[in-house]
Amino acid sequence: MTDFLSRARPGVQHLAPYQPGKPIEELQREFGLARVVKLASNENPLGPSPAALAALKAALQADPAELGRYPDGNGYVLKEAIRARFGWAHERILLGNGSNDVLELVARAFLGEGDDAIYAQHAFAVYPLAVQATGARGIEVPARNHGHDLPAMAAAVTPATKVIFLANPNNPTGTWFERADFEAFMAAVPANVVVVLDEAYCEFVDDAQALSGFDVLDRYPNLIVSRTLAKAYGLASLRVGYAVAGADLIGILNRVRQPFNVNSLALAAAAAAVADDDFVARSRALNAAGRRQWLDGLAALGLRAIPSRGNFLCVDMGQPAGPLFQALLREGVIVRPVANYGLPDHLRISIGLAEENDFALAALARVLAAAGQGAAVAEGAS
Amino acid sequence: MTDFLSRARPGVQHLAPYQPGKPIEELQREFGLARVVKLASNENPLGPSPAALAALKAALQADPAELGRYPDGNGYVLKEAIRARFGWAHERILLGNGSNDVLELVARAFLGEGDDAIYAQHAFAVYPLAVQATGARGIEVPARNHGHDLPAMAAAVTPATKVIFLANPNNPTGTWFERADFEAFMAAVPANVVVVLDEAYCEFVDDAQALSGFDVLDRYPNLIVSRTLAKAYGLASLRVGYAVAGADLIGILNRVRQPFNVNSLALAAAAAAVADDDFVARSRALNAAGRRQWLDGLAALGLRAIPSRGNFLCVDMGQPAGPLFQALLREGVIVRPVANYGLPDHLRISIGLAEENDFALAALARVLAAAGQGAAVAEGAS
Repeated sequence: MTDFLSRARPGVQHLAPYQPGKPIEELQREFGLARVVKLASNENPLGPSPAALAALKAALQADPAELGRYPDGNGYVLKEAIRARFGWAHERILLGNGSNDVLELVARAFLGEGDDAIYAQHAFAVYPLAVQATGARGIEVPARNHGHDLPAMAAAVTPATKVIFLANPNNPTGTWFERADFEAFMAAVPANVVVVLDEAYCEFVDDAQALSGFDVLDRYPNLIVSRTLAKAYGLASLRVGYAVAGADLIGILNRVRQPFNVNSLALAAAAAAVADDDFVARSRALNAAGRRQWLDGLAALGLRAIPSRGNFLCVDMGQPAGPLFQALLREGVIVRPVANYGLPDHLRISIGLAEENDFALAALARVLAAAGQGAAVAEGAS
Repeated sequence: MTDFLSRARPGVQHLAPYQPGKPIEELQREFGLARVVKLASNENPLGPSPAALAALKAALQADPAELGRYPDGNGYVLKEAIRARFGWAHERILLGNGSNDVLELVARAFLGEGDDAIYAQHAFAVYPLAVQATGARGIEVPARNHGHDLPAMAAAVTPATKVIFLANPNNPTGTWFERADFEAFMAAVPANVVVVLDEAYCEFVDDAQALSGFDVLDRYPNLIVSRTLAKAYGLASLRVGYAVAGADLIGILNRVRQPFNVNSLALAAAAAAVADDDFVARSRALNAAGRRQWLDGLAALGLRAIPSRGNFLCVDMGQPAGPLFQALLREGVIVRPVANYGLPDHLRISIGLAEENDFALAALARVLAAAGQGAAVAEGAS
């Protein structure tokens, strides 16, 4: 009997797949729970933009035979919506099956055995996975205050470095960096190293001075800005992300892209969502209010979160977080353990609707009280 | 200014992207045509299964907030539908964003620089593209009667061979091989070489004796059977394919798979479609009638097609096919030139509805008459 794993590429042999958040139905089946609140995947609690929902319904009510046709492999309607909203020419836009696809296409276009890629400690898990799958060496640069240490990342560049991944804000920590620090970083990085600036959460940032990749893109031919429709636009179910960069870089990435990587309904919904500024503003405001609610509630429990500009908080539980994660599941609350990010005492909690946040905070209070009692009992027994 | 292409992986530097069929709207814009018949992408002219359409509508009418959630990364509902219909356990099923995704995952899991992969001349274009992107060497084995020469393919195996791609029926030729020939091939191929049997068009085959990968899968631990929902099931717009193999092979492919590669609406529609045997039977019958219509019509024009078991015919035009393709576009008929498959005198024509076939045959008659006159004029002039 052949051991096929030994026949796989070296990078693949040691790959541990990404662990997604637990689906609600799975937890309901497992524990027989009536109410489950999922704050585990940084989803938009408002769901999709109403404009996107209307576009989906219209697509189904039009000639259904169209659903039997392949998607437009060039994604004309969505590129046109991005051009209309943000001004980028079509040839500067790469569409992805989620921004995960975008990140992977960069890795596959530029990385292989003998190459280096750089990312930060505690940065989004897809960077090391995508790098490792290609057989390239991933260089993880230690974080500073849980965030990217940009000078150290620039200093980590070797002659073999082809790609650097930056996340601003970063998932799962919520940390960010300032525009001046980014500019100093870009000045220090060789011009032939591709820099990916992952802005999956940028729409939640409420600061006119904040770095926006779109504002600086034209100054850096080696910069790729990645965005997603999964977060502020509420289209996680449909898998749409995109990148903007110079036409030369986009052309290279398109060579590796599957010709029909974004499906027809996703294209239609995303094109409508990109134009819906009101919905993004509502999502941002809901998130800001929910973040205050959580920070107050956590303070009342004696807990602190890493300062975050995302739609989630990375909370220091002051103890190993795994048992608390499990206890919260039994309370019907799904959050995300981040031990795989080197943060074994933290839980990442997505910001939900006000009543979801209340439900989860109350559950957290009960779980912490029980853990405190458990700890007291254990201490008493020792 | 950096030449970023020189920084891309060697396999990527020489990659020419897949050329999709021309979209209908694009042709209408270009030539101001009222009616356009697209017989270019082997799509199902019936559109999607009504059960799939109903599932999509139900998904949009249920809690819309669910569209803001990530898809189930394990694709439970679709795997369960495949299990119920075909009997395969979930751990033996890999879901893909179209079968293109499945084919690419096999390439990326097993192939890289220093490895060989084998496919046939005139075989589906995604095989060489997926192989080349990894940096592996693709070995194209000359066809026999436009079909796979299985003994020659087995003989082409080297110690570096990791993967062999077979298509049955093959696109764009429609050719097929018999079960006994396949069994002889598998007996000749080393047990540690992964064999992908791409059955994208198998539902159109109307022959109880025909090879079905699902019937022989349990005999070959190195066999991966790939299927798609894009053809007989009419879901090309939604991008769903899948593979079935041993749990060990599927586990390896899942390591490389993007965690949310199939979107939520695609999962729901595909789960309904897989159960809809009646629709597949209707598609098969329509295709058989349309194939007869085309073969009769082509014979009347003095043309012959390669014998085909797919939902398309690869027609020998007896002259360079490029100008005929262009002339058909001006008539409002989109077919597929296959010069990139080493078939410069052929056109691949998908089988449509009866009236679409009539429209295209009439256009073809006019185009051939004009080309004949043109040729006569040119001959007279020389």
